[in-house]
Amino acid sequence: MLSNLEKSYIAGFLDGDGCIMFQLIRKKDYTFGFQVRASIVFYQKSGNDFILNWLKSKLKFGYLRRRKYGMTEYTIVGLKQVMSIIKLLKPYLKLKKKHADLALRIENIWPEKFNEKKLLQIAKLADGFKKLNYSKKRKITREVILEYFKNGPRND
Amino acid sequence: MLSNLEKSYIAGFLDGDGCIMFQLIRKKDYTFGFQVRASIVFYQKSGNDFILNWLKSKLKFGYLRRRKYGMTEYTIVGLKQVMSIIKLLKPYLKLKKKHADLALRIENIWPEKFNEKKLLQIAKLADGFKKLNYSKKRKITREVILEYFKNGPRND
Repeated sequence: MLSNLEKSYIAGFLDGDGCIMFQLIRKKDYTFGFQVRASIVFYQKSGNDFILNWLKSKLKFGYLRRRKYGMTEYTIVGLKQVMSIIKLLKPYLKLKKKHADLALRIENIWPEKFNEKKLLQIAKLADGFKKLNYSKKRKITREVILEYFKNGPRND
Repeated sequence: MLSNLEKSYIAGFLDGDGCIMFQLIRKKDYTFGFQVRASIVFYQKSGNDFILNWLKSKLKFGYLRRRKYGMTEYTIVGLKQVMSIIKLLKPYLKLKKKHADLALRIENIWPEKFNEKKLLQIAKLADGFKKLNYSKKRKITREVILEYFKNGPRND
């Protein structure tokens, strides 16, 4: 179990260094063509691996991966895993409280089984992370999925 | 007064996003030609100013400055100010515990009045921050100051 001091520390670390994302990912083998991918990512110089290992020992979920340029990434993927961590940290988050609120709204309407309407509803909320994360790279938005439903896949 | 939960949060935030530095700075009007400048810096998109303002309201010292590219910097400068914050947060720091220990060693030998020997001793310890901060830009090291004491200032 995490102590409140540990939760508060991790919330500070996540606010300073971490990233909460809901991405829309093209998946040709998915019934509706897209995956909604929830993730939390921490990114550190590989020399600081120990802090990522400590985080993993506390948060339980996820995995570490060595990346380019001497960096290590600790990623937690999956709605259930991400939401359990967000709920744990939410009382202590400051900078990413908005991320947490938006994630909770998405979880709230996440269906047992997706259909086009549900996917578009969730995509709309997920688009909110573009602004929260100052993301300029986000290419697949609700609009793109809507277009796909209307006209089918373009070259991809 | 800061609660332990707040200290723990700020330690996490400092570990994730902040920087503790001891820099050697050329000052022509200083008796020994160099200043040892202790500082703590937080760096955020200007849209996240509120978290820096919150930190300042808690840590008391320092000032916020708008920087280029939509960034804001919260800087605390000065041995006394920096050390009081380090001592407050040290029990909760993980990644920057080494920085804190090194800073305490510097404070320990910081003299009432500098002389050449003391400045070189402190410069040697301060050089340790180069490695801790993966700093490639650090140009003024103990060696540079030693050279200056031997041969006087070069073109600067």
